[in-house]
Amino acid sequence: MIKIAIDTLGNDKGPEVIVEGAVMALNANDDLAVVLYGDSAVIGAKLAELTYDKQRLEVVHAPDAVTNYDNPMQAIFQKPEASIVKGLQELGKREDLFGLVSAGSTGALIAGALRYVPAKQLRRPALAAILPAAKGGYTCLVDTGANIDCTASQLVDFAHMGADLMKQYYNVENPRIGLLSNGTEETKGNKLVKETHQLLKAEADLNFVGNIEGTNALSGDCDVLVAEGFAGNQVLKNSEGIARRIITDVVVYGKKTGNPEIMKLVQYLLGVYDFNALGGAILLGVGKPVVKARGSANADSIKNTSEILLNMAQNRDIFFGKDIR
Amino acid sequence: MIKIAIDTLGNDKGPEVIVEGAVMALNANDDLAVVLYGDSAVIGAKLAELTYDKQRLEVVHAPDAVTNYDNPMQAIFQKPEASIVKGLQELGKREDLFGLVSAGSTGALIAGALRYVPAKQLRRPALAAILPAAKGGYTCLVDTGANIDCTASQLVDFAHMGADLMKQYYNVENPRIGLLSNGTEETKGNKLVKETHQLLKAEADLNFVGNIEGTNALSGDCDVLVAEGFAGNQVLKNSEGIARRIITDVVVYGKKTGNPEIMKLVQYLLGVYDFNALGGAILLGVGKPVVKARGSANADSIKNTSEILLNMAQNRDIFFGKDIR
Repeated sequence: MIKIAIDTLGNDKGPEVIVEGAVMALNANDDLAVVLYGDSAVIGAKLAELTYDKQRLEVVHAPDAVTNYDNPMQAIFQKPEASIVKGLQELGKREDLFGLVSAGSTGALIAGALRYVPAKQLRRPALAAILPAAKGGYTCLVDTGANIDCTASQLVDFAHMGADLMKQYYNVENPRIGLLSNGTEETKGNKLVKETHQLLKAEADLNFVGNIEGTNALSGDCDVLVAEGFAGNQVLKNSEGIARRIITDVVVYGKKTGNPEIMKLVQYLLGVYDFNALGGAILLGVGKPVVKARGSANADSIKNTSEILLNMAQNRDIFFGKDIR
Repeated sequence: MIKIAIDTLGNDKGPEVIVEGAVMALNANDDLAVVLYGDSAVIGAKLAELTYDKQRLEVVHAPDAVTNYDNPMQAIFQKPEASIVKGLQELGKREDLFGLVSAGSTGALIAGALRYVPAKQLRRPALAAILPAAKGGYTCLVDTGANIDCTASQLVDFAHMGADLMKQYYNVENPRIGLLSNGTEETKGNKLVKETHQLLKAEADLNFVGNIEGTNALSGDCDVLVAEGFAGNQVLKNSEGIARRIITDVVVYGKKTGNPEIMKLVQYLLGVYDFNALGGAILLGVGKPVVKARGSANADSIKNTSEILLNMAQNRDIFFGKDIR
């Protein structure tokens, strides 16, 4: 049984969708247990509407929320009853908790995780996304936007943390590290990328495979794609935006033609390319798995994000979408 | 009649594909005339295989090529017989030439265009891509990778040049300028983006609409998307990579199901999202339209790139793909 903590507050759509998503994850996975953090009255009211295995669900009352108006660093000290703080405190203390999901404040999540779930080795935390690679398997993109204006040595840290993640939780023995650039040649890149390239080449314990262009960011030419947060954010969000747009075109065409096979195609495409629904960024540089769901996450996304933790716990191969090939 | 110069040398696939693409463009457009620059014997041999209106095709013998081994700046002086140099010299001199297409060295194209086709106002040149916007119309992305490690004032120049392009050649009266960032809020961005944001806000003659996230880079929320070359290159290449990948999935599914409507869908998607085939970057900051085709361009791409110039000359609305809606 894998037990995970789920923060029900601080998201855009209210605690009900989080509770609903948690129950969806429970019902889809017999080996999952969840602990919900938030206002127990609100959680209880929503749970009363749902059917699930009560043995595998626990509620911890922590009714405060950290909002976008709070300073995240201050909030983790001043709001000890905040669900995100309580959840992280218990994640740090309770051995039965494998990891935590939150759709709340990114800043509070990072600050709280550093404080209550510290890593053995101190590194600047980063947010990674596990994305489906064209050649099969997946690519760990790090950083997706938590760190803007990085130094080259921070990017080297990202490479190490990404490699550790892929080894520990994703069955990748000797992760290939790629560096996002505007060309594959060693001489391509901005100053930061050129400097990072040399540092990565010199790291004996990293399997550095060189620069990767945007066209091949998710081709599967590397297991860990290292990027400064601003550029990594572009890769993640552009890919998502274009994919969503093409899928919308396919939906429109499917409706127009009424062709049922096109609607099957849409389901496949959503299963692979709907990064927002599938997504959840993994916080690197802390002591236990912590996953950040989007603030706008719906119940489906919360289910998917919870399953990221379950997959990590079980070193399970991720299967993106129903394979049509 | 719109007459354009086409450089047949310096590309990856040899002069034959360029000649073939030029003839395809001629045959598809009665109002187009072309002047081919390159080795007249090679061009003549290829032309002998093709059918076209000889009245609308001229060949200028300029048998030298600028290769990747040449220093582009030196090459434009040391290789006066290079096709790209000759073409740009004539573009600067001949009033009957509207613009030029080259799939050769980007560096030589920029250096040569600055030297032989100077703009009235001196600005750092940039490469723009005209990309289909989700809401219809198109977005001018500038810079797509010609300028790496830019300053904020260069980005402001990009905004002006992009706005001028959209006004002069694309019927956009008061172009909306967006700034690529990792969030829409004014406070989001790296140092460069934050500084550029303030400068763009202060430019009285620009219609600045604020930051644009990667998800919406090509949504159509702006007419000109300003980006530092490294980030702009990511937008262009990522979008292209993901689009190509999804289209490949659709092709595979179409073949598997043998469903003819899926193959029609593929044609539509290729018409809108195959940026590589449709593409061609427009060189901004020079006196006449100059379009850079990819080094790997095939005959189709050369045809499409030539038509970019034709569309510009005629202020014609671009029609991306066969509309399925």
